Amino acid sequence: MYHYQLILAYDGTEYGGWQIQPNSLTIQQLIQEAFTVIFKDTIFVTGAGRTDAGVHAIAQSAHFSISYPIDILRLKGSLNGLLPRDIRVKTINPVSESFHARYSSTKKIYRYYLSLGSTWNPFTRLYSWHISSPFNKEEVKKAIEYLIGEHDFCSFANVKRGFKEEDTVRILYRIDCIDTPDGFYFEFEGNGFLYKMVRNLMGTLVEVGIGKISSDEIKIILEARDRRKGGRTAPPHGLFLVEVIY
Amino acid sequence: MYHYQLILAYDGTEYGGWQIQPNSLTIQQLIQEAFTVIFKDTIFVTGAGRTDAGVHAIAQSAHFSISYPIDILRLKGSLNGLLPRDIRVKTINPVSESFHARYSSTKKIYRYYLSLGSTWNPFTRLYSWHISSPFNKEEVKKAIEYLIGEHDFCSFANVKRGFKEEDTVRILYRIDCIDTPDGFYFEFEGNGFLYKMVRNLMGTLVEVGIGKISSDEIKIILEARDRRKGGRTAPPHGLFLVEVIY
Repeated sequence: MYHYQLILAYDGTEYGGWQIQPNSLTIQQLIQEAFTVIFKDTIFVTGAGRTDAGVHAIAQSAHFSISYPIDILRLKGSLNGLLPRDIRVKTINPVSESFHARYSSTKKIYRYYLSLGSTWNPFTRLYSWHISSPFNKEEVKKAIEYLIGEHDFCSFANVKRGFKEEDTVRILYRIDCIDTPDGFYFEFEGNGFLYKMVRNLMGTLVEVGIGKISSDEIKIILEARDRRKGGRTAPPHGLFLVEVIY
Repeated sequence: MYHYQLILAYDGTEYGGWQIQPNSLTIQQLIQEAFTVIFKDTIFVTGAGRTDAGVHAIAQSAHFSISYPIDILRLKGSLNGLLPRDIRVKTINPVSESFHARYSSTKKIYRYYLSLGSTWNPFTRLYSWHISSPFNKEEVKKAIEYLIGEHDFCSFANVKRGFKEEDTVRILYRIDCIDTPDGFYFEFEGNGFLYKMVRNLMGTLVEVGIGKISSDEIKIILEARDRRKGGRTAPPHGLFLVEVIY
């Protein structure tokens, strides 16, 4: 067998997320359907992160295996010809048999975009969470300090239906706050992320930003190890999977 | 009568342009329909520039008159509540009776976005013209030099059906080239622009960038005063009306 990695970008607006599921069009499904057209065979594509409905990817990573070697540039052209315009294959790399898009990854980077101001911007409306209340960025930066490092992030993890995460300890290496023309984004780098963890962190940080809770309460929420203590889940359309590191 | 200026932002992707026309949904129409709901009366809205189908605006300017004074903040809220999410009223200002959104303007600023690279970016696909050929920016900068200043831009003006522009002399004060994460944009500031002038200039400049014509040919095309000598018309989705100056 020959093994390959796909690096993909997609605008998640129109999709039910990465993973194949009934009653909703997904990225994985469309890529596998394109493979079926090209190779006249079923090729299973495994993604590094199961981005939820409406979440975007600047560089999602996935792998697949096939019984004969492929012409990489030609396959990239064929896939991009068959895929809708909002999903693009950026690169295809040969990898070893041991490579697994999800389990081989050591770190992941996500970004969450916020736009501020009384009126939202029509050009970022699909790619950021618009906050019209006054926002205290300095207070959010103080709250972030409590989150950096190795912690049990149980208070920020949703429980997937029928699936309880055993180990909820993760390392957050950094949360950077970068200015944009109409607000800013937070960039999260960690060794792994629990289900909805970035959106739950972001929802809680926004509550700090708009003064609903204080920055010190983040410490109390984190130590409570109880999802019910955490803030709301931020909407999906501000979230981008930026990079999967191996 | 009381007179007001509207400053509007819109994503032109889904619309047939600014001006009301049959068989196509336009920005002017949606704003006038919202006015009809609010005031139970027909209010005519005049725009500064008739952006074409698919062209965007960061700050279109328009004016309207009404027989009684209005609560500006309340009207802004009502209009934004009635308008689709991709059209936003940014500000409403009281103006004098002599103010005309189009004829009072002294300068306009447009931007045209280009994205480069072998694969387009799903997040800028609706807001930039993707050029996959190698692109020589320095050669384009040389070509731009010929365009700055007062010229007869006839070679870059389309003729509107049943309407011949008498005076095709305009002043271009500057064309700046600004880098973006996936390419760059050209910002055009002029005292006025002929029909499709920015898109025709941009189409011709891209022909310079990809080496189809030399930078010196811009001078020959300009002096020919003949639209047939000019390059192709750039697609609408890269164009933004940025500011109308009074």
